[in-house]
Amino acid sequence: MRSSADIPLVAMVNPPTSQYSENWRHPLARTDWLDARFYADLARTLERGGFAMMFMPDALAIPEDGAGSYATTVRTGGKGTIYLDPVVVASVVAASTTHLGIGATMSTTFLPPYAIARTMLTLDHLSGGRMAWNVVTSTTDAEARNMGMDAIPGKVERYDHADQVVRTVLDLWATWAPGALTLDGDARVFADPNLVSRIPDSDGQALSRGPLTLPRSPQGRPVLMQAGASERGRAFAAQWAELVFVVADSPDAMRAIRTDLRERAAAAGRDPDGMLVLPAVQPVVGATDEGARNRLAEMESFLDEDEVLTILARLLHADPAELDSDGDAVTLIEAHRGSTGSDGFEEMLIRASRAEGLTVRDLAVRQAMSQLKPQPTGSPATVADYLCDLMDSGAADGFVIMPSLYPSSIEDFVDGVSAELRRRDRLPKNPENRTLRGRLGLPV
Amino acid sequence: MRSSADIPLVAMVNPPTSQYSENWRHPLARTDWLDARFYADLARTLERGGFAMMFMPDALAIPEDGAGSYATTVRTGGKGTIYLDPVVVASVVAASTTHLGIGATMSTTFLPPYAIARTMLTLDHLSGGRMAWNVVTSTTDAEARNMGMDAIPGKVERYDHADQVVRTVLDLWATWAPGALTLDGDARVFADPNLVSRIPDSDGQALSRGPLTLPRSPQGRPVLMQAGASERGRAFAAQWAELVFVVADSPDAMRAIRTDLRERAAAAGRDPDGMLVLPAVQPVVGATDEGARNRLAEMESFLDEDEVLTILARLLHADPAELDSDGDAVTLIEAHRGSTGSDGFEEMLIRASRAEGLTVRDLAVRQAMSQLKPQPTGSPATVADYLCDLMDSGAADGFVIMPSLYPSSIEDFVDGVSAELRRRDRLPKNPENRTLRGRLGLPV
Repeated sequence: MRSSADIPLVAMVNPPTSQYSENWRHPLARTDWLDARFYADLARTLERGGFAMMFMPDALAIPEDGAGSYATTVRTGGKGTIYLDPVVVASVVAASTTHLGIGATMSTTFLPPYAIARTMLTLDHLSGGRMAWNVVTSTTDAEARNMGMDAIPGKVERYDHADQVVRTVLDLWATWAPGALTLDGDARVFADPNLVSRIPDSDGQALSRGPLTLPRSPQGRPVLMQAGASERGRAFAAQWAELVFVVADSPDAMRAIRTDLRERAAAAGRDPDGMLVLPAVQPVVGATDEGARNRLAEMESFLDEDEVLTILARLLHADPAELDSDGDAVTLIEAHRGSTGSDGFEEMLIRASRAEGLTVRDLAVRQAMSQLKPQPTGSPATVADYLCDLMDSGAADGFVIMPSLYPSSIEDFVDGVSAELRRRDRLPKNPENRTLRGRLGLPV
Repeated sequence: MRSSADIPLVAMVNPPTSQYSENWRHPLARTDWLDARFYADLARTLERGGFAMMFMPDALAIPEDGAGSYATTVRTGGKGTIYLDPVVVASVVAASTTHLGIGATMSTTFLPPYAIARTMLTLDHLSGGRMAWNVVTSTTDAEARNMGMDAIPGKVERYDHADQVVRTVLDLWATWAPGALTLDGDARVFADPNLVSRIPDSDGQALSRGPLTLPRSPQGRPVLMQAGASERGRAFAAQWAELVFVVADSPDAMRAIRTDLRERAAAAGRDPDGMLVLPAVQPVVGATDEGARNRLAEMESFLDEDEVLTILARLLHADPAELDSDGDAVTLIEAHRGSTGSDGFEEMLIRASRAEGLTVRDLAVRQAMSQLKPQPTGSPATVADYLCDLMDSGAADGFVIMPSLYPSSIEDFVDGVSAELRRRDRLPKNPENRTLRGRLGLPV
């Protein structure tokens, strides 16, 4: 069982592009991200650092600007220019580690539930029960057009379909009852047909009929992970999610989201403790606080003003020529609501810009540094204090750690902060039950 | 370059069920086929044995009997009761080996081409250019119902759609031109947008628009593999396939198929030498010919007459109670044409039953032993003679080796036959160019 003092850490991994726009050209970034060893090494570092999970996000198209062009994204190496199949990367991670949990993204809007269920369950078997499915509904027309649709369905329609898909995936995972696989050679019974069933009440309208071609998961079923800050997204999380990845720019905002999600889960009849709310944090770690601040400044020195404005314009689907760098950031964002595909992200931009009176130039720099994720910057003890305070004040059940640089941000975190958290007895030890559920204390 | 004397060997791997119905309960079969080590060990054995490729077939439902029940399949551990996701297994194979080619199946009928293209290209990058996509259109209503359709589309419709899907996958693989990924940090150019393109002429009716989120394949593009013995299947192979997996019960039948496929490829404007025709062979290897015959007899001794008749009835969608074990096999098969989903397989059953005057009991035994694949049985030298003769007489460009027992059939083949072929200088050495195309001498 997980102790309530333990801090579950999840690393988000999608090189070569990161929340920090210059990752790909930074001298400390590895460039062999098309080689399996890159992911194997990263996974082993995370396992050594007591991380609960390595998580691979995904999108199914290169992000476009307001004119429908991917040229700026491709030229600048914007986040999303490169996405490997997270399922394949997850297999590499499984093969390179023994205890690390593994989260992979699959889209409910574009993939049949049978395909999702079987892929995730195969990974769960071959990893010894360490998988989480990160449920996304996808957000852009560019993705829809890559996947054979004219446009992305509306948010409510996407989530309504996602409810059906998740229900079907859970049903498929349950088509083999515990003990169904008998392998009784003398009796010539491979599996007991009475313990292998179709999905209940599946008919012509169902998304799948079952049974799956695989017995039950080593951890009961893979863990369900989700992000989604909108009203409909939170309702979905309250219904299904066991790990919720949230993005907030302050402790108060984290606490408000966590409180809201726990209330919604309780209202949906769930034990709120069966859902871990994990805010995104992008730490910058140095040997000392001053050393860390110097690292942050060094990262910022790689930015170019024209370039960060171009990147911001692309993100907000604005015309770069019309951007007034001394203008008010809130006005700019308000004029381009809906452009990023994420309500929660845009609300965070507005909140931060308003609270801090950001100019467009300020916003562009903050966006290029971390997409406005919190960047606790300091010694291992300072960053550990920050994380422990958030845990102990009810703002978080753990964290999604977002690296600025691959792999050096992860290495610095593991060598410094993980070691410090271990000294404080705040980092979970490798559990005897090496399933992800066992590690996170999540019920089946 | 591959020498024309080299014999490319492909192993088909889908434990725990095999062409030999008793594999799962045989004392020499490993039972840890839900553990990644099983596949890693098998892959390393194949690499050591000079195999060109390990290939994972697939189906998306447990096979059913004529009444639409999967109970007999599940109870007897029939082929297809268990299918792990071949893509995940392929990742394990890639991570465990350095030179072995890897073939994974994905269905054109059920999966969007963007998903196929990205998964295969991710595997191609992370394996260093060792992937082949085994193109299937799927065949059964059970699969269609698992994937959200009411029934499987007709063969012509499936292949027409498959033509579009393959065309789109090839187009997606070409969306990043060679040299597009520049990673020029000084010039701030991650990739050259002029070398990254949409699919030509993609419009509202296209299956995908592109570009993909991955640069070009390390081997130009993954190799295309296909099986399909029907008229429409052969036309498809002539158009697209670089490896053709064929099933024939005699050297003459193999030669006829190969000749036909090469003529079709030439008529389609292709160089026939850019297509390797690989018949299925299920060797039984012993230290001596007599020892091998004893092994075959031992395998047969695990069969049970009632059980093999039940299995045959299930396969042919016949009522087991009405089977006359002394009756004529051809009559039985003719009465149940279309039941197996494979015209080629049914034609082979009829041809063999007629040529050898098989009773229903004979057919049931042969079906339970190898699904009527040729079973060359003998010492390493005898089996090597058999394979070399087929190569040298124009019946084959290589072979798909079907194991009876996992992993012992593979181990016996590698230790005996591979070693013998190496002595004869008939086995390709690991090429300097470790891509699958490099190994097989296939052009881009």
